[in-house]
Amino acid sequence: MADHVYKKIELVGSSPDGIEDAVKNALTRAQKTVRNMRWFEILETRGYLEEGKIAHWQVTLKVGFTLEG
Amino acid sequence: MADHVYKKIELVGSSPDGIEDAVKNALTRAQKTVRNMRWFEILETRGYLEEGKIAHWQVTLKVGFTLEG
Amino acid sequence: MADHVYKKIELVGSSPDGIEDAVKNALTRAQKTVRNMRWFEILETRGYLEEGKIAHWQVTLKVGFTLEG
Amino acid sequence: MADHVYKKIELVGSSPDGIEDAVKNALTRAQKTVRNMRWFEILETRGYLEEGKIAHWQVTLKVGFTLEG
Amino acid sequence: MADHVYKKIELVGSSPDGIEDAVKNALTRAQKTVRNMRWFEILETRGYLEEGKIAHWQVTLKVGFTLEG
Amino acid sequence: MADHVYKKIELVGSSPDGIEDAVKNALTRAQKTVRNMRWFEILETRGYLEEGKIAHWQVTLKVGFTLEG
Amino acid sequence: MADHVYKKIELVGSSPDGIEDAVKNALTRAQKTVRNMRWFEILETRGYLEEGKIAHWQVTLKVGFTLEG
Amino acid sequence: MADHVYKKIELVGSSPDGIEDAVKNALTRAQKTVRNMRWFEILETRGYLEEGKIAHWQVTLKVGFTLEG
Amino acid sequence: MADHVYKKIELVGSSPDGIEDAVKNALTRAQKTVRNMRWFEILETRGYLEEGKIAHWQVTLKVGFTLEG
Amino acid sequence: MADHVYKKIELVGSSPDGIEDAVKNALTRAQKTVRNMRWFEILETRGYLEEGKIAHWQVTLKVGFTLEG
Amino acid sequence: MADHVYKKIELVGSSPDGIEDAVKNALTRAQKTVRNMRWFEILETRGYLEEGKIAHWQVTLKVGFTLEG
Amino acid sequence: MADHVYKKIELVGSSPDGIEDAVKNALTRAQKTVRNMRWFEILETRGYLEEGKIAHWQVTLKVGFTLEG
Repeated sequence: MADHVYKKIELVGSSPDGIEDAVKNALTRAQKTVRNMRWFEILETRGYLEEGKIAHWQVTLKVGFTLEG
Repeated sequence: MADHVYKKIELVGSSPDGIEDAVKNALTRAQKTVRNMRWFEILETRGYLEEGKIAHWQVTLKVGFTLEG
Repeated sequence: MADHVYKKIELVGSSPDGIEDAVKNALTRAQKTVRNMRWFEILETRGYLEEGKIAHWQVTLKVGFTLEG
Repeated sequence: MADHVYKKIELVGSSPDGIEDAVKNALTRAQKTVRNMRWFEILETRGYLEEGKIAHWQVTLKVGFTLEG
Repeated sequence: MADHVYKKIELVGSSPDGIEDAVKNALTRAQKTVRNMRWFEILETRGYLEEGKIAHWQVTLKVGFTLEG
Repeated sequence: MADHVYKKIELVGSSPDGIEDAVKNALTRAQKTVRNMRWFEILETRGYLEEGKIAHWQVTLKVGFTLEG
Repeated sequence: MADHVYKKIELVGSSPDGIEDAVKNALTRAQKTVRNMRWFEILETRGYLEEGKIAHWQVTLKVGFTLEG
Repeated sequence: MADHVYKKIELVGSSPDGIEDAVKNALTRAQKTVRNMRWFEILETRGYLEEGKIAHWQVTLKVGFTLEG
Repeated sequence: MADHVYKKIELVGSSPDGIEDAVKNALTRAQKTVRNMRWFEILETRGYLEEGKIAHWQVTLKVGFTLEG
Repeated sequence: MADHVYKKIELVGSSPDGIEDAVKNALTRAQKTVRNMRWFEILETRGYLEEGKIAHWQVTLKVGFTLEG
Repeated sequence: MADHVYKKIELVGSSPDGIEDAVKNALTRAQKTVRNMRWFEILETRGYLEEGKIAHWQVTLKVGFTLEG
Repeated sequence: MADHVYKKIELVGSSPDGIEDAVKNALTRAQKTVRNMRWFEILETRGYLEEGKIAHWQVTLKVGFTLEG
């Protein structure tokens, strides 16, 4: 990792199934336009309720990726 | 959401099964007395150990609900 | 203020007109059920956009009030 | 503590005698309306001066209590 | 909001007229290149002085927008 | 700005009219004894209530000024 | 808990399977040398990506244990 | 408090006797040069050990005072 | 202090008598195994209630000690 | 600076030679695609060790640049 | 250090040469009017760019000094 | 890094020569008793003054190392 420069972006993903799935959904979407993603850090975990049940989990994360060349 | 006023309360829930279940247990209990819960934010995640195993997970969360009328 | 005990609650108010109005709307609503409100502290200021314009401002605040007798 | 759900509330107590007494005064007052208080956490410690002397200490604390049944 | 993935970017806007206008100026500029902006959060509020008067207010904000498709 | 050394001081201003006016009142007063004020940063925004209305807004700010020579 | 003195240490555990498993892996390893572990607090949750997929989750936690006698 | 402008300064006081005394020692010294001190807020509490005993407590505090006229 | 290297450890002490005593109890226990303790910093102050009274105070602190040779 | 809108991005740079060089390496790389960079703020400083020596320093920074017209 | 009362002030220094030099420049200037400076703590490190190069580093620091007599 | 468990310890190092050297001195000392150190994070940077000059820089850092087997 010594020679690389990374950029970090902030994303918000969600899922009805839980925290890990909300992260995966954000990363799957980001993959379409961002190459070389290397790591992420969870910043915030929330959820939204409908009729007393958790309708979806929502996770804010930072994702680091290598800036090529 | 433009016209509403919300109140936020702080709860601590626990579960032997994991983080998401600890959140659900807090919300299920809160539901008995709080109406119109809309979202939650996780503040802190802990766990308690007995004989070297995780006996229960414990999650502190803020819950926002609509103040009616 | 020496002999009093205060309680602080967390509210979220909103307004299409700006930060100060969002605070006032939260306080006006709280007044219906909370007596002896003495001060507030702004925790967070947000806004929601519709078609590129700010539809409403949203302010999270803590409100302190005297616990009587 | 595994099965309980707790609620946390924020209080401000004061005393001319010191930090510990300001905490106790807040708890004594809270006891009139809150049952099953279990623990507290000090968030902030302040004091107010009159003619160059500390007139009273003021402590902000969170108190956790069990939500029954 | 359940199925969306959002990206958050950080902007700094300014205005001679006050905090709300500094936010609006940042959003107006961002709109030229960012579609689907949904909300913002104020991170920091500053001001710059010239000859003892506030020449302009400067607000740092995060803006969340929907990542399409 | 490359060669200057700045000092920052912390002030609290207030106003019945709103956040921006509370800042201006603090700066107007500071100007009597502090020269070369260059910028400020808002740290905290509060308000005090009397009979259910906001009697005054209170803003804590840091002010940076150039140390001459 | 009244008479005990606890020490807290900071650990980082990881797992390909999720947040809870990363915590358990850290605790299982710690158990080999630390007795009387009582609770943990999650400080940070990260993940590392390989070829666009989460290769492993990584959780930083503090663990509290009783100092005997 | 509506019309006043306050300045806040940061002090560090110490005492062999405890936290409250360290605060008082800082205030007693400040009084020699600062008029109209109104309140303080504790920022940090430390202590220094000599031969295994607490030689003195050390408290960092902010003190607010009224800027006259 | 110029040539030394210090290590800092985190401890939790408690006492029925107050904050200072909880600190002292943690230090007394640590002394059995840690030499050359030089200073401590209070991180968190809590208390536990039994039947509406404070059963014990609990203080989390960091302790710095010199690493010899 | 009164009329500008700035965007801030987060970068991570590294260098075997020290903190300032890690910053410069991040800026040199960013320059290839970002115009009008105006300032940066260091968020985090880390280092990685190989065989007991610092192999490279790693600095996370925010960089602000002017959004043109 | 047991009997002293300290005051802490906040300064911003800068240098084209690096972080340590920016600190030294702030201290050199402060020395003209502040006696008995004892320690400093770095709060924030920034830099300003001109034509893609670091024109100067800028460091915000707190400086503690003994209040005499 | 996927299968490892790490422990993090907190150290304070110092040097008359600057920030990087204070870090190196802490790591050199730690190496005598800690194996497999992998990374560090700077938490705090301070300095101590004697007769108006920086006598030594002091850096607090966390060091992560692999827990073997």
